[in-house]
Amino acid sequence: MQAISWEHDRLKLLDQTVLPLKKVYITCTTYQQVADAIRNMKVRGAPAIGVAAAYGMALAAGSIQAANRDEFLSKLKEAAGVLIATRPTAVNLAWAVDRIIAVAEAAEDWQQLPALIAKTARNMEEEDIAANRRLGRNGAKLLPDKVSILTHCNAGALATAGYGTALGIVRAAREMGKTVSVYADETRPYLQGARLTAFELMEDGFPVTLITDNMAGHVMQTGRINCVVLGADRIAANGDTANKIGTYSLAVLAHENNIPFYVAAPVSTLDLSLSTGDEIPIEERSPLEVTHVFGQQIAPESIHVYNPAFDVTPAKYITAIVTDKGVAFPPFNQSLPQLIQE
Amino acid sequence: MQAISWEHDRLKLLDQTVLPLKKVYITCTTYQQVADAIRNMKVRGAPAIGVAAAYGMALAAGSIQAANRDEFLSKLKEAAGVLIATRPTAVNLAWAVDRIIAVAEAAEDWQQLPALIAKTARNMEEEDIAANRRLGRNGAKLLPDKVSILTHCNAGALATAGYGTALGIVRAAREMGKTVSVYADETRPYLQGARLTAFELMEDGFPVTLITDNMAGHVMQTGRINCVVLGADRIAANGDTANKIGTYSLAVLAHENNIPFYVAAPVSTLDLSLSTGDEIPIEERSPLEVTHVFGQQIAPESIHVYNPAFDVTPAKYITAIVTDKGVAFPPFNQSLPQLIQE
Repeated sequence: MQAISWEHDRLKLLDQTVLPLKKVYITCTTYQQVADAIRNMKVRGAPAIGVAAAYGMALAAGSIQAANRDEFLSKLKEAAGVLIATRPTAVNLAWAVDRIIAVAEAAEDWQQLPALIAKTARNMEEEDIAANRRLGRNGAKLLPDKVSILTHCNAGALATAGYGTALGIVRAAREMGKTVSVYADETRPYLQGARLTAFELMEDGFPVTLITDNMAGHVMQTGRINCVVLGADRIAANGDTANKIGTYSLAVLAHENNIPFYVAAPVSTLDLSLSTGDEIPIEERSPLEVTHVFGQQIAPESIHVYNPAFDVTPAKYITAIVTDKGVAFPPFNQSLPQLIQE
Repeated sequence: MQAISWEHDRLKLLDQTVLPLKKVYITCTTYQQVADAIRNMKVRGAPAIGVAAAYGMALAAGSIQAANRDEFLSKLKEAAGVLIATRPTAVNLAWAVDRIIAVAEAAEDWQQLPALIAKTARNMEEEDIAANRRLGRNGAKLLPDKVSILTHCNAGALATAGYGTALGIVRAAREMGKTVSVYADETRPYLQGARLTAFELMEDGFPVTLITDNMAGHVMQTGRINCVVLGADRIAANGDTANKIGTYSLAVLAHENNIPFYVAAPVSTLDLSLSTGDEIPIEERSPLEVTHVFGQQIAPESIHVYNPAFDVTPAKYITAIVTDKGVAFPPFNQSLPQLIQE
């Protein structure tokens, strides 16, 4: 399952807005097309957006007509500005584009820059996949030989350059010979679980059972799963974790049912400048995401809606935080800084 | 707001499958049509199903061709079996049908039974509304003067003969002069919260905020509500409560956040023949309810789905059970039998 691929100097993206109803690939030949794809969420997931934007920079570099180095860099930075502006909140996007600019500025022969930037983007893609594979192995070691995993939202191949974070652990567990099955929360309102996680796990032949979010407690209570594995959007120094709305509820329910609760994220998700999760801002999104499903109205016209996109799970409910650099156990304000230093 | 009415020897039902998009009434002239309406959830909610089934028995009685009392009762019991088999979890259904059978068996003149059964059904409808008003007052007394209530599914006028159980408490609180606002879980998969609770509370002018089910924990964690009030489909002798899927999760989350958790149900919902909730059968419904929303596919074709319609909340998470005969507090295996004796 690869949502992003670079083929014959073109960027091929799996259009995630129409999954799982249609499997449509779009081909971007200009950086403006990549910017549109990010803006319209045809590619989503913070790591995936970063890699797509890096390839967008490669497309920009390949098309630039310039008489000298300064003109080339000036035009490249213009493209960078357009790409960064598409999703101003995604930190990996600016990080990836800035890294390309830094490479360009450090290069000696500016006429080789199109090839160098394409190579850098490909390296970033490969690094992301490699990091996810390390993360996956680190997490899979924690699981029993026969495991039924509950996951939430999509922290999978589709959200990254490939392999995934939470779903990377699922894949690594199978590669280690473990018997793995998954319960996928549908993840209202945007249905990333029903649309994306269910889709990518089925494509890869995993036994996956779809449930609505409010069934997760019952699934735990009746012994149908024996661990929870999901992603993170930002992790504070004490281990408090912002992730897709509903994560907090799952953490409390897992705790009450003595079920291990694992957060999977690369170390770039750590924000040790925040001492606790109280400082993490919670994005509120459009009421239409709640009142309409694929354009179908499901609630009374003009109903008042509260639609927080994330919640914060206190560290006390988290069994371990699994990263590409190792696994952190409580107390996280000691174990997380150690991971980064190593 | 009345979902059930008996007019000119016919049963008129507000079709709850198309609310809130359309307000359509269907007319049942046979008990088989009533059974279909219950099975297909055109009428739903434990007390409403009971009253509808009682009227279904009246329709059956009116159509029976019999030579003698035994033949009449035999055919009436055949209809009873069909009606009871439509939904396994709610106890009110069997309770209502059995009551009609008891009335029929006790009657002296079997040829008067069609009229007697219709009268009994109408009494049951009126009793249900009166019981809900008493229940509402009993529950409203427990609430602070300014209260933000989280509710789940629809335990409202639409789920009963009128006024509602959980939403009866909401109505009674306002009638007592309290300031009431409500958060309504959308209640996937069937969206009774988004479609029915939001609809009936808006119609009655209550401030209501719609959330997805996975937001309930966050709403509690951030202090947006100060109690949970919801209905029940069956309550065992120890207080264990079967109710709409997701109720168990809310109970655990309320407990963790020190928020009172109130179950509202008429005493007909009590099933003291069951010592614990382990004995309550849990209905599993069609995968299509999860994979499709108003006919719109939202998940991969042929995905495996688990779709339990109810879960069981252990009594230890329940602050009080509010009935038409008073409020039961723990230990419920002492307080519940007392309510019935009184």
